[in-house]
Amino acid sequence: MSTVRVGIAGYGTVGRATAQILAAQPERIAARCGARLEVTAVCRRTPVAAGKAPVGARVYRDWRELVASPDVDIVVETIGGTDAARAVVRAALTAGKPVVTANKNLLAAHGEELLELAAAQRLPLGYEAAVAGGIPVIRALAESSAGDRLHAVYGILNGTANYILSRMESDGVEFPFALAEAQRRGYAEADPTWDVDGLDARDKLAILARLAFGGRVDPARIGVMGIRNVTAMDMVYARRLEASIRLVASAQLGESGVAISVRPWLVPRRSLLAQVEGVNNAVFLEGERLGTQMFYGRGAGGDPTAVAVLSDLMEIAADLAGGKLAAKAAAGFRETTDLAISAEPPPVPWYLRLVIRDRPGVLARLAAGLAAHGINIDFVLQEPGMPKERLPFVITVEPVSEPLMLRAAAALDAAGDLLEPVLLLRMMPA
Amino acid sequence: MSTVRVGIAGYGTVGRATAQILAAQPERIAARCGARLEVTAVCRRTPVAAGKAPVGARVYRDWRELVASPDVDIVVETIGGTDAARAVVRAALTAGKPVVTANKNLLAAHGEELLELAAAQRLPLGYEAAVAGGIPVIRALAESSAGDRLHAVYGILNGTANYILSRMESDGVEFPFALAEAQRRGYAEADPTWDVDGLDARDKLAILARLAFGGRVDPARIGVMGIRNVTAMDMVYARRLEASIRLVASAQLGESGVAISVRPWLVPRRSLLAQVEGVNNAVFLEGERLGTQMFYGRGAGGDPTAVAVLSDLMEIAADLAGGKLAAKAAAGFRETTDLAISAEPPPVPWYLRLVIRDRPGVLARLAAGLAAHGINIDFVLQEPGMPKERLPFVITVEPVSEPLMLRAAAALDAAGDLLEPVLLLRMMPA
Repeated sequence: MSTVRVGIAGYGTVGRATAQILAAQPERIAARCGARLEVTAVCRRTPVAAGKAPVGARVYRDWRELVASPDVDIVVETIGGTDAARAVVRAALTAGKPVVTANKNLLAAHGEELLELAAAQRLPLGYEAAVAGGIPVIRALAESSAGDRLHAVYGILNGTANYILSRMESDGVEFPFALAEAQRRGYAEADPTWDVDGLDARDKLAILARLAFGGRVDPARIGVMGIRNVTAMDMVYARRLEASIRLVASAQLGESGVAISVRPWLVPRRSLLAQVEGVNNAVFLEGERLGTQMFYGRGAGGDPTAVAVLSDLMEIAADLAGGKLAAKAAAGFRETTDLAISAEPPPVPWYLRLVIRDRPGVLARLAAGLAAHGINIDFVLQEPGMPKERLPFVITVEPVSEPLMLRAAAALDAAGDLLEPVLLLRMMPA
Repeated sequence: MSTVRVGIAGYGTVGRATAQILAAQPERIAARCGARLEVTAVCRRTPVAAGKAPVGARVYRDWRELVASPDVDIVVETIGGTDAARAVVRAALTAGKPVVTANKNLLAAHGEELLELAAAQRLPLGYEAAVAGGIPVIRALAESSAGDRLHAVYGILNGTANYILSRMESDGVEFPFALAEAQRRGYAEADPTWDVDGLDARDKLAILARLAFGGRVDPARIGVMGIRNVTAMDMVYARRLEASIRLVASAQLGESGVAISVRPWLVPRRSLLAQVEGVNNAVFLEGERLGTQMFYGRGAGGDPTAVAVLSDLMEIAADLAGGKLAAKAAAGFRETTDLAISAEPPPVPWYLRLVIRDRPGVLARLAAGLAAHGINIDFVLQEPGMPKERLPFVITVEPVSEPLMLRAAAALDAAGDLLEPVLLLRMMPA
């Protein structure tokens, strides 16, 4: 049986977990892919503590040495970021070595260039680990559903935000408290912007939308709203509406293009989305023939992500051993056209949470403000016993498209009656 | 671009849907797999109506002619059953042609022999469509989770049974009514045994357990109970327990072997299993490193199953076009050892629904009967206003292993106080 030698560039959580799995069950993995996988080199800018590197592996400080090493057959990129990571992947492919990466930012920003290079070199570039951790959604899009025409891909793509919303729902705590708890448990970074403001989900959505619809999506064109303004009071109102709040990344193909955004949604309690709790992720696909599919699991963390890295590594190792290496299908990354982003996405109902000083005429003015945009109020919901000086209440409105809703909300914010900006939740029908 | 020529043996629902997709979007499929896919031959024992065969395809009555035809590169087997289907697959592989099959019965009964032949011939035998229709659970097990050690695979594998249970739950109807409705809608066959008695789910579970745990599982060794004895009254009790009833196929690795069965379960309303409604399927995997994953979608029907057939066809066509055809990984089907089936699976709580003629001393005798087996009652539940002459009520018991529970239930049935056999539901913890 041949041996395939792996170099791991970026020896952090995911890189170490990958090496650990390879060391823990070499026989099992060899039996599955027909080749032995051996980590022969790792690299990291900071020193690796004694005993922490894989047995027998050399430890480099400079990734160039790892990529150039004659005893590295496949390069695993787990450095993160887009600068060094891009250079590593380019150098490895140029040197004729297949690459596996877990780097969503790299794919979202430079996926096209890198997959084009891989195709030119006739080499596989595996990125199952880049989106939704251990959930095999790249294979689902690139292989399993390839015979269908998809019209929607959406889901919960950020475990940190979902953990925070789950805590707020189950324990009645406010956002800052739940965030601090997430940070204490290592689910959120010291600077949580990327996770709680929806940017991480946006980058993942850009990758999924490319694969689903076969065209380029610049992440900067995706409308994003995070969860910082969701309050414990919203959880109370959500419960009264028999619903939960989830941060949903969604891309939906319509006649005028793709409606694409990352936003908090109000989802019915008895829906699959509402059952996704804690740090879990879920991806939904809707196809002409497949109907609705859902893929659920842990979307981050060293171990699940490493299993996804392994799935690519084992596939490439089997091909290397069988002498049949080839570029992988990369639908959407070989396209030269941008996906049309819909300027007028389909109307949906919305939840508006407003905080006012309750004075005669306020509600009438707010209602008139919505009416001026042609928006019909569905109903008004107010918890009893709220202070009149700072009264949070909820208006739900009949279906209206997102751009119009955003304009109307901006007008309400500007009119001077609100003590806080409107919180807008997209409502998913029961 | 090269053309890969497909012969479809068995031109029924799935075979026709496969041909239709290939005819409807040839460019898209060619772009995805780097080869044109063309149906050049179909065969069916009964005549194919004019205009119903793919354009340009020859129609055979005898599958031998289709398999032997020099312009068939890949054979799709959608005949069903195990006799002719087995002969078709053997003949095609022997003739050096890759095969794609949607046939769970064939895989469960002869998978080992056929995958061994495929390996010897160095040919792929794709069977993504054989389990759970369009849900890519074979890829999830064989590729995506290959780097992890799984300890459980379970789920809802029969859409007909799930449709019936969903109807009974939502509309309060009895089993025969829901079954007739399923038959009217084409979800259930005239003889529904295979679906409602759990045999279909059992065959699929045997395939999944082989892939998950890497050993042979004879379907005949899997304990099976279907849903015929579930009544509208059970749905009432389930609601009071904030639960739903689902037919669950489950294999769980323990110290003494694999605990494996197909049984109705009582699952909490707020669980992913309870959200699986109608004809949908869901498969859960639990792994050491992946944690819990779930794959959800339509588990049967021509279109979703055809998309799964296509996923295998496109992968094989890409390999054929690239000159790198090889046997696919088939973990669990190359093993020569049987999986150890656990004689004493881990204890779980149970729901017992009993129908008695309510006379003094009956409950005491039933309780004593359970106590004689060392089984502790958790609580007793009785709807008000039931007739004393035919009183259905529920006992839930503290965790006890399945064999012991079955013995105790058999003893209750034999004791003479029950008007119907005990209905046993395994309770899933909230």
